[in-house]
Amino acid sequence: MSAIGREQLHLNDVPVPQPPPGQVLVKVNAVALNYRDKMVIETGRGLPLGFPFTPGSDLSGEVISTGENVKHLSIGDRVISTFTPDWTDGLRPGTGRTPAYRTLGGFYPGVLAEYVAMPEKWLVKAPKTLNDAEASTLPCAGVTAWFALVERARVHAGNTVLIPSTGGVALFGLQIAKANGAEVIISGRPENEQRAIALGADHFIDKKREDWLEAVYELTADRGANHVLEVIGGPHLAKAVQAVAVGGHICQIGALEGFELSAPAMPLMLKDVTIHGIGTGSRKALENLVRAVDRKAIKPVIDTVYEFIDLFSALDHLDRGPFGKIVVKVA
Amino acid sequence: MSAIGREQLHLNDVPVPQPPPGQVLVKVNAVALNYRDKMVIETGRGLPLGFPFTPGSDLSGEVISTGENVKHLSIGDRVISTFTPDWTDGLRPGTGRTPAYRTLGGFYPGVLAEYVAMPEKWLVKAPKTLNDAEASTLPCAGVTAWFALVERARVHAGNTVLIPSTGGVALFGLQIAKANGAEVIISGRPENEQRAIALGADHFIDKKREDWLEAVYELTADRGANHVLEVIGGPHLAKAVQAVAVGGHICQIGALEGFELSAPAMPLMLKDVTIHGIGTGSRKALENLVRAVDRKAIKPVIDTVYEFIDLFSALDHLDRGPFGKIVVKVA
Amino acid sequence: MSAIGREQLHLNDVPVPQPPPGQVLVKVNAVALNYRDKMVIETGRGLPLGFPFTPGSDLSGEVISTGENVKHLSIGDRVISTFTPDWTDGLRPGTGRTPAYRTLGGFYPGVLAEYVAMPEKWLVKAPKTLNDAEASTLPCAGVTAWFALVERARVHAGNTVLIPSTGGVALFGLQIAKANGAEVIISGRPENEQRAIALGADHFIDKKREDWLEAVYELTADRGANHVLEVIGGPHLAKAVQAVAVGGHICQIGALEGFELSAPAMPLMLKDVTIHGIGTGSRKALENLVRAVDRKAIKPVIDTVYEFIDLFSALDHLDRGPFGKIVVKVA
Amino acid sequence: MSAIGREQLHLNDVPVPQPPPGQVLVKVNAVALNYRDKMVIETGRGLPLGFPFTPGSDLSGEVISTGENVKHLSIGDRVISTFTPDWTDGLRPGTGRTPAYRTLGGFYPGVLAEYVAMPEKWLVKAPKTLNDAEASTLPCAGVTAWFALVERARVHAGNTVLIPSTGGVALFGLQIAKANGAEVIISGRPENEQRAIALGADHFIDKKREDWLEAVYELTADRGANHVLEVIGGPHLAKAVQAVAVGGHICQIGALEGFELSAPAMPLMLKDVTIHGIGTGSRKALENLVRAVDRKAIKPVIDTVYEFIDLFSALDHLDRGPFGKIVVKVA
Repeated sequence: MSAIGREQLHLNDVPVPQPPPGQVLVKVNAVALNYRDKMVIETGRGLPLGFPFTPGSDLSGEVISTGENVKHLSIGDRVISTFTPDWTDGLRPGTGRTPAYRTLGGFYPGVLAEYVAMPEKWLVKAPKTLNDAEASTLPCAGVTAWFALVERARVHAGNTVLIPSTGGVALFGLQIAKANGAEVIISGRPENEQRAIALGADHFIDKKREDWLEAVYELTADRGANHVLEVIGGPHLAKAVQAVAVGGHICQIGALEGFELSAPAMPLMLKDVTIHGIGTGSRKALENLVRAVDRKAIKPVIDTVYEFIDLFSALDHLDRGPFGKIVVKVA
Repeated sequence: MSAIGREQLHLNDVPVPQPPPGQVLVKVNAVALNYRDKMVIETGRGLPLGFPFTPGSDLSGEVISTGENVKHLSIGDRVISTFTPDWTDGLRPGTGRTPAYRTLGGFYPGVLAEYVAMPEKWLVKAPKTLNDAEASTLPCAGVTAWFALVERARVHAGNTVLIPSTGGVALFGLQIAKANGAEVIISGRPENEQRAIALGADHFIDKKREDWLEAVYELTADRGANHVLEVIGGPHLAKAVQAVAVGGHICQIGALEGFELSAPAMPLMLKDVTIHGIGTGSRKALENLVRAVDRKAIKPVIDTVYEFIDLFSALDHLDRGPFGKIVVKVA
Repeated sequence: MSAIGREQLHLNDVPVPQPPPGQVLVKVNAVALNYRDKMVIETGRGLPLGFPFTPGSDLSGEVISTGENVKHLSIGDRVISTFTPDWTDGLRPGTGRTPAYRTLGGFYPGVLAEYVAMPEKWLVKAPKTLNDAEASTLPCAGVTAWFALVERARVHAGNTVLIPSTGGVALFGLQIAKANGAEVIISGRPENEQRAIALGADHFIDKKREDWLEAVYELTADRGANHVLEVIGGPHLAKAVQAVAVGGHICQIGALEGFELSAPAMPLMLKDVTIHGIGTGSRKALENLVRAVDRKAIKPVIDTVYEFIDLFSALDHLDRGPFGKIVVKVA
Repeated sequence: MSAIGREQLHLNDVPVPQPPPGQVLVKVNAVALNYRDKMVIETGRGLPLGFPFTPGSDLSGEVISTGENVKHLSIGDRVISTFTPDWTDGLRPGTGRTPAYRTLGGFYPGVLAEYVAMPEKWLVKAPKTLNDAEASTLPCAGVTAWFALVERARVHAGNTVLIPSTGGVALFGLQIAKANGAEVIISGRPENEQRAIALGADHFIDKKREDWLEAVYELTADRGANHVLEVIGGPHLAKAVQAVAVGGHICQIGALEGFELSAPAMPLMLKDVTIHGIGTGSRKALENLVRAVDRKAIKPVIDTVYEFIDLFSALDHLDRGPFGKIVVKVA
């Protein structure tokens, strides 16, 4: 991209980069798209982009050459990217005034390219059990659901998890919750019920049911959900606060219905609820997810894989609420 | 009270109760008031009150007789009440549908009386270093600030705590944060600055400053506050989310500015913020607070002590935003 | 029992007790034995027993009558006992000088009887999916493994759990770890390998292999086990400390090889290891386990069910290292 | 050093290094010694040292030149070193088989030199309120006590901390526990009682008292200590396990009395005790300590400052059990 706007998106032929010290050259095989990519392409989203700018953050690929002093990766290694490369483990970067915003395809250059060179520390070895398209879905959607449910909310067997969506993060949440022994209630459009059940959901609630909250209470014998993966945002947080159990956890992840959250104070306070603000996860969390994916044979849900030349169609599909992830095949 | 409404509040002569098995009779010496008491008296607050009803929840007094099978208390013990007597330790009672609401002076009878009989488990031994009026402030305001800062948000030396008020819970928060080694920023009306500083506040911000948020960033060198004791509620939560540090904690305690919270999603998510809903604390937390009060010589801040016959004046004072607690002297 | 010693164990006909206020009468259907029961019967174990004394702690049965003021249980309810009835949730009772020792069949009367009356708070509703013999194994062995792995060590998908035994707590540990998505390595006698694998163990190591530690390292690609359920004790803790991963957790549960633990300091310190002392679990943990058992269809492993009159054979069996639990059928 | 052994320790004139990219050159002003330094010099401690080898790990100094791409430090910045430079935050490096051992003055070159060049990420800005000798004590002894008490055991106001020593880590533990509002019991040689009390200790127990454990119980009204900073090791862990409170924390830090720990199993299990293996702390913990030192005006306790040419006397002093730290003045 030479400027902001979809019409500025061109496939340019540029020399294949040589990896400087500490970096590796990756042949990109697949890139998973996030709704954020669409916003960055179309509006820039207020980010300090350097042009020409390459969008996209979530790659799977193969190391094809290594710079000096590269220690952990070798030619031939299958790798995936980290979304927030400066966040290794523990506390993430940033300040109260300026939250962390240095992500691939945002502050840092993106990965919608045939070849990218990047520091080896920005890459994690891909799961052995996933193909390229599947592996590309982990760096943002996968690690977000994992970090929320496992490393913050600490879901375990016997818990009930409420997930009010069937998008990319939501379906990872379903699979990760099931892999940790939890019961899962999915809420979404009725045409997705069968696919959600097939993926392991224990219960499905039509998201437009008038007695939506009553349905949650009934399915949990009034206890409420121990965990809510709040991927919708805006006023929907109010529903999460009402649906959650005493001592329960709400992971605030998405803002599809608005960036201004609202919720009633009393149930939040009287039920001793914890709300976790979630903005993807650390590199360590991604490594933990990769191990769990291989051990538990988790297969990410992909709605459609598009060819690189059909990128615009792929971006359009994001608006229609896919069931799982949209992936672009690069090689 | 024979019905809801301030005009229904009468001082009745009733026989001094005899404590049944497991209960003790307490001579009440002082009762600290909460804004909730005013609401219960004037509106009932939707609670299932049994009439005649006695309001008030926070007593300090002395055990003057004991029923059969009382094991932990003796005649002469100085005691304080627990606000939520069924919450001993760990998870509080209640369900997702029906949060815990069984409190003294709410579901259970209150303590604005010369003598009350109650289960010994509803009482905790009073701190040795406090007088009756001071001790009566712990069961609600004191334990709320303690539970929030120490048992949920886990404040420690080197942290910065932001407290946007000078009310009862707020000033306990100031003293508890200082007792745990933290730096404290108080925000309030300018006429309270000197008293807040005298109590140990490190910094004071006029709550009406136009550059309020900028002031927080400057005092923390952009880091933001590690902990915010959000005692105001409503749209003020938005300020807390902006002012808090990366990885920081917001304790949502009060709803003076409204029961409908609102806040921006992005800083909550990108700063990995945790919001804790706080509704007082457990009996175990109150015991821990009593120990800390004695060890650290914490003296609760009382704005005014009223005589029992001046109860209406005391209730009126609650509306004017006291600096610390309002207490009614009973004996 | 009228005194300590197995020869003092008699089946006495006593009147069926009437439940006093707050208590219920339970018809006992099955009692699971623990090695502790054998020690109490044969040596008294230094406990302040009141004679005549009834041993046994882990019952499953049915409520057949209720005293006054019983609120949570009804006639016909299937119930199981709590091992440490005063430990509800949060911090357990006891002091630094005198640890909690008030257990059923120890300080409190036991349950090896056709009928027992006890406070309703000492009982938890039995899982719907288990028969009486199975349900009786939860109050001690089951809740110990659950409390250790889920509520203290917080096992999750992708973790590796090392369990060096095939006894009652160990096999619950295996099933609970699997229910939470972990990989499990069992170590034991070779004749138990097939049964352990059939229960879901991912790997089995002969406990007498000379290169036992090397085997653990190989199975974990040098990482070590994230969690070790140390049910053996004595000098075996040294093996746990060597086998555990960086940042890993050791749950110290048993003392079969001695009450004096020993372990090397350096790997404990350099690997940032946490050791949790585990002595059963709280009532809340037992309720959580019951829910997980029903949801995940966990079937406790019972080696042999004995008739009540064969109690001595059952006690003898405990010495031979059963594969899972020994249960006595009462009704 | 050209080989292991104190007689191999020479002060060599070598060219002042030029900092390569990402590194800075530090003029060393003071180096605090640890008992480990003595062992490395005299025995090599089994570490893979490269000769010529420079011992020492804990420096304070000043940045006097910067290599390319240095972003966070500038000429003139006062800095201290990190002891385990690869441990930034969260999980430390290493595996179950091979714990992390890459420390300054161990695997990496040490700092007992006039000038050292090292990556900027290995340095942290020094506290503003400490002089060079004081600042040099933080990288090992200071951060170890901080990480143990604040980041693992989470000490707070009202807690009692038992510290059975008056060495470097122990006295930091005393100061850090007090800064977090705790009560502190120090145990040591009687000649150190007055100095310990002067530093803020609330109680002092002669470490040779026959009724040592009874003394702890009496000072805590039988509750035991909430936290024990176990800096002695070997069989002393048994005392810690007996002295600790129900639900208490033992931080296992030192091995002065032996590398083979031993302790009784029953109180560990019945009191629900947690043992934390502590091997210094992360870079993030050191940054947190620096902030707390400045805010709380903590002044590290230095027994003696030696001139660089008196290094052997300084090493000898380590054997005699100093009260606080031994520091070598370099510039």
